[in-house]
Amino acid sequence: VNKPIQVKEFPLVDPDERSLTVKIDMASLCGTDVHMWRGRRIVPFPLIPGHEGIGRIHKLGKKVSKDSAGNKVRSGDRIVWSHVLHCRNCYYCFIKKDPSGCQNKIIYGYISSSEHPYLNGTLAEYMYLRPNTVFYIVPEEISDEVVVPASCALGTAINGINRARVDLGDNVLVQGIGPLGLYSIALAKERGAKKVVAIGEPGIRFETAKLFGADYVINRFALDVNQRIQKVKDLFDGRGADLAIECSGYSPVIIEGIEMLDHGGRYLLLGTASENVKMLEINPSKITLRRLLLIGSRATEPHHLLEAIKYLQLTKLPVERMISHKYSLEDAEKAFKAYEDLKVVKAAFTL
Amino acid sequence: VNKPIQVKEFPLVDPDERSLTVKIDMASLCGTDVHMWRGRRIVPFPLIPGHEGIGRIHKLGKKVSKDSAGNKVRSGDRIVWSHVLHCRNCYYCFIKKDPSGCQNKIIYGYISSSEHPYLNGTLAEYMYLRPNTVFYIVPEEISDEVVVPASCALGTAINGINRARVDLGDNVLVQGIGPLGLYSIALAKERGAKKVVAIGEPGIRFETAKLFGADYVINRFALDVNQRIQKVKDLFDGRGADLAIECSGYSPVIIEGIEMLDHGGRYLLLGTASENVKMLEINPSKITLRRLLLIGSRATEPHHLLEAIKYLQLTKLPVERMISHKYSLEDAEKAFKAYEDLKVVKAAFTL
Amino acid sequence: VNKPIQVKEFPLVDPDERSLTVKIDMASLCGTDVHMWRGRRIVPFPLIPGHEGIGRIHKLGKKVSKDSAGNKVRSGDRIVWSHVLHCRNCYYCFIKKDPSGCQNKIIYGYISSSEHPYLNGTLAEYMYLRPNTVFYIVPEEISDEVVVPASCALGTAINGINRARVDLGDNVLVQGIGPLGLYSIALAKERGAKKVVAIGEPGIRFETAKLFGADYVINRFALDVNQRIQKVKDLFDGRGADLAIECSGYSPVIIEGIEMLDHGGRYLLLGTASENVKMLEINPSKITLRRLLLIGSRATEPHHLLEAIKYLQLTKLPVERMISHKYSLEDAEKAFKAYEDLKVVKAAFTL
Amino acid sequence: VNKPIQVKEFPLVDPDERSLTVKIDMASLCGTDVHMWRGRRIVPFPLIPGHEGIGRIHKLGKKVSKDSAGNKVRSGDRIVWSHVLHCRNCYYCFIKKDPSGCQNKIIYGYISSSEHPYLNGTLAEYMYLRPNTVFYIVPEEISDEVVVPASCALGTAINGINRARVDLGDNVLVQGIGPLGLYSIALAKERGAKKVVAIGEPGIRFETAKLFGADYVINRFALDVNQRIQKVKDLFDGRGADLAIECSGYSPVIIEGIEMLDHGGRYLLLGTASENVKMLEINPSKITLRRLLLIGSRATEPHHLLEAIKYLQLTKLPVERMISHKYSLEDAEKAFKAYEDLKVVKAAFTL
Repeated sequence: VNKPIQVKEFPLVDPDERSLTVKIDMASLCGTDVHMWRGRRIVPFPLIPGHEGIGRIHKLGKKVSKDSAGNKVRSGDRIVWSHVLHCRNCYYCFIKKDPSGCQNKIIYGYISSSEHPYLNGTLAEYMYLRPNTVFYIVPEEISDEVVVPASCALGTAINGINRARVDLGDNVLVQGIGPLGLYSIALAKERGAKKVVAIGEPGIRFETAKLFGADYVINRFALDVNQRIQKVKDLFDGRGADLAIECSGYSPVIIEGIEMLDHGGRYLLLGTASENVKMLEINPSKITLRRLLLIGSRATEPHHLLEAIKYLQLTKLPVERMISHKYSLEDAEKAFKAYEDLKVVKAAFTL
Repeated sequence: VNKPIQVKEFPLVDPDERSLTVKIDMASLCGTDVHMWRGRRIVPFPLIPGHEGIGRIHKLGKKVSKDSAGNKVRSGDRIVWSHVLHCRNCYYCFIKKDPSGCQNKIIYGYISSSEHPYLNGTLAEYMYLRPNTVFYIVPEEISDEVVVPASCALGTAINGINRARVDLGDNVLVQGIGPLGLYSIALAKERGAKKVVAIGEPGIRFETAKLFGADYVINRFALDVNQRIQKVKDLFDGRGADLAIECSGYSPVIIEGIEMLDHGGRYLLLGTASENVKMLEINPSKITLRRLLLIGSRATEPHHLLEAIKYLQLTKLPVERMISHKYSLEDAEKAFKAYEDLKVVKAAFTL
Repeated sequence: VNKPIQVKEFPLVDPDERSLTVKIDMASLCGTDVHMWRGRRIVPFPLIPGHEGIGRIHKLGKKVSKDSAGNKVRSGDRIVWSHVLHCRNCYYCFIKKDPSGCQNKIIYGYISSSEHPYLNGTLAEYMYLRPNTVFYIVPEEISDEVVVPASCALGTAINGINRARVDLGDNVLVQGIGPLGLYSIALAKERGAKKVVAIGEPGIRFETAKLFGADYVINRFALDVNQRIQKVKDLFDGRGADLAIECSGYSPVIIEGIEMLDHGGRYLLLGTASENVKMLEINPSKITLRRLLLIGSRATEPHHLLEAIKYLQLTKLPVERMISHKYSLEDAEKAFKAYEDLKVVKAAFTL
Repeated sequence: VNKPIQVKEFPLVDPDERSLTVKIDMASLCGTDVHMWRGRRIVPFPLIPGHEGIGRIHKLGKKVSKDSAGNKVRSGDRIVWSHVLHCRNCYYCFIKKDPSGCQNKIIYGYISSSEHPYLNGTLAEYMYLRPNTVFYIVPEEISDEVVVPASCALGTAINGINRARVDLGDNVLVQGIGPLGLYSIALAKERGAKKVVAIGEPGIRFETAKLFGADYVINRFALDVNQRIQKVKDLFDGRGADLAIECSGYSPVIIEGIEMLDHGGRYLLLGTASENVKMLEINPSKITLRRLLLIGSRATEPHHLLEAIKYLQLTKLPVERMISHKYSLEDAEKAFKAYEDLKVVKAAFTL
């Protein structure tokens, strides 16, 4: 925790018959990588961080002949993979069909590197994908920059927005303009929203929010809370949002988010994904009397990664702008600090 | 407010061509009737209270020949009516198809009786139903006792449960065993729940909860909050409720309700229907990480009253037990006080 | 029937207090206008044909102060209106919330012009909109050409596609490239489809299908039925369509459409909207064994017209290309014949 | 095919580490068992028929310690199992979450018994359940008679009805009163239908249909097709069914089923589950103009078996009447013939 981030060597073991190894081309940083470095998330050090990545198949286990969509694969194919390995057999995976409840899951980037198979994170030259890891071939027409964050932030946004729907002509509010917010803006815009309004802090991501499809971005610091509520209502036909999406992770914004919704509105909660968030004081009668729907969604299922790839093929927006800065592994600490200071939209490592 | 409740005379005016008058047979008390008497709800006194009732058509306006389901009507037919008169033309009524957002609605039992047409509440011998009031003929096989509360509490429960669904085999928790809770128990049980657990206070309604289909009723006062949570989990396969329904109107129970839900559970908020409820401190990450759905629902649309009638025809449960005590209008104050002291399941007036 | 189409004069009456009159700017032809001229649809001649139009408010009834979305209106405002006037009170309108089942509806363009208020169709200088006709102000940024067909073909496509959903990344097949097909292509493309394949006849609409977002257009006449099925599967990952939309109105294509669907696919039937279509021989086990969903949808509800306006504001596609040719009223017969001979995408009249 | 059904001996092999063996207590006959004997369904003889059964665990593989709901198991526990073994990894199983499309599935009762592990059907003393077979402990309070058909007919009915929904107060029509029809009647009745009408042939199942909750059973042979349509409409408020369920497998009834639906009705097709059904001539405009929904559903997923167990615990109906006759294995041919001649509701073997 908080110690210098070092480049170290680990053994590159051969895959067993149902595993494969990957030569990483590019990896990107997620906020949780920074959190674990800073000790806000408990993990078993030493570990190779990173759960977002793209690469080419290095060695295939004997029994691995197809990707998870059923396409034949061979060494050298460019792939992405799900960073979560669900058990597929527990009550939540199998009966409820909601693997987010799986108690047996393994998450790459959060596993100790001190034992076999060592290479469990994307911030490395090679990575080892265990049996049943979901992976897909990436179509050549989409670039590394576009795909590398797909398995995490984009998959999470897709999962949530599928659950909350975007109805044709919806007024959509996005709170927060980090990666999750930016993808939510893009998805809302390209799935039928009439107007997308985002709220965020000034900085590099502010302009990116517009590039990703926001019709209007509110500077959080230029207005007080009542002004923000009024501004959102004014922008949304005087009524408020049909759909609001909380992507900031800063829980107090939920109070104003509830006020920004129209009667009957839907509120997708994506950002507050850590137990250590601030408690929130709300008036539950607002949910009842205004017939709101509060929709929690968390992380992603492996099939959302396939949807993410499809989305990246169809989008007309400059989603490659998600990666604003590139680093070498040697500069890892610089990248972590830049992320922390919101100097980047998203930082990537080329390998 | 708080003054003695008096029996007074008002003019019985003839209906205009699109209205009708009704001879009330039975009316029942709702919690809000007590609230307005005690001044917790602001209304224009003097008024005739009561929005739940059943009666027979006294006089029909010239242009009223059918009930709202399209059946021919004539004087003497036994009917129930929606106590809410929506405008049918505003953005919420017409475009969103969610009339609960209607800003132009009129609610019987909350209207001053000092001007034409005077007879706006059910605690009276006659009532005047204005143009566009939704009303339905009641099949003879169901008794007054069974139908009289249908337009309010039962319709509200149906509206909410339709929105939240009961999946086959669901474990359902009902918080609160007043009329709303009792109907929710019954509906959950008869729409496919495997087990229904209710939480409530000891008293007359405690046994009624079992009669209405609860497999288990927890005495709220016999256990502390952690014991209650543990008890619910134990009763529900160690996991918690698939669906919880808040019917008590006492907002702090929502905190424990969230804990009583299984991962992925649905939480229907029906009870906190007044702005003056206690504020609530919650951890929003529980909604996100556990993928909960919080579903606000309020009141009822006129078509739910038709569904309520159908439900009362199909139920196998002793729903006539909802009316536990009957009063004459002269004893109105006694009835109000008995309701307030939870001495009755529901009090009715025979007229 | 089949007689020369004539320009005639009718009285321009003043609106009653809940009606309004409109000065038509532009009207467009729908296939049913041609059908009624040719006698394939029985209507009460003489009539002013046309149900698609846009215009400016000429005179407002005393009690008409707002459009159906609640915006204030005055003479001169540019508006569109729903060509269907539902009763709002019958079982289907009010209880089922599916006004397409309304038995009391009035449809402009199908009403005799021989009696008051005479001006019931859009192919005229003025039109009379009766009480309760839904109308909306049109934002200035969208042109007459773009809006004029919105109330009919676009509303029908929106209604159906809302019902059938477009899931993110769906492979979508559209059968038929008339106005309904073209709008379906556009909507599918802009609501998240990964690939849209259309099937149609060569001609002016063939290129328009690509402009409206089709990734591939199959020439119906260049391939036999088995080749068409194979082609669609090849274009859709070897599996078939996730969603197919029948827009041709030629019922035999439904047989091949069923074959073109993937296991679990959804089939939206929009085109066969006349009872006089050819009977169809199908094997129902295909629906059962392949878990297909066949979704009938018909016409449009007034709120879809509002969604249509919103869609026209948000689309990036050249939807103004729907109107390929313009005529004066004097040339009406030319326009009808051009439509019949598929020489136009859609014909409009400027007035 | 058509040869005498013989009792033979096969080796009882020990389970491998992820398998188990079961001592069968009771097995029941399904229509497909008869079809395969009569050669209407191609299977690899010799085989042990039967896919419906209940039994006690004989031997557990080393790694099998829990049932598929996560409950600990040991030898002697009473269990049911899914007769379909899906691959869990293909596009349909894993990405679409619709395992009915799985191309790699294995179905007990349809597998040759000529090679290891031999015991693949329920009409035997013992059965071998391969790795990943879904099985659940059966609560002691429900009898063998009640549970034995759960994995097939009841699971199929649950799967379909979950997909088609029963709305509160629905008028439901069930075509066919074999096991699938009987369960559909029961489920519709106990999930909120107001009235359930069935159509079937006279015989032992006719009375059973009433016991299972049908409010009215129409004798198919006593009325001609138009009379049947009229009768159904009369029984359903003059409008027709909100939901119809085809359970007869005789495809021509679909034509009259479409006529028996109300505008906007839902039609669940469950029965025509063999490719060899009669072709059907329909007018597709009826689907479009009346906004029907045709919903194909097939077989069952393993989690529906768990829902089936829960349903059998909650039902108030005499579902044990499904098994009307019991046989010994020696009398197998008698049982097959009795099923064929509709002399039984369902035939079971006690073992």
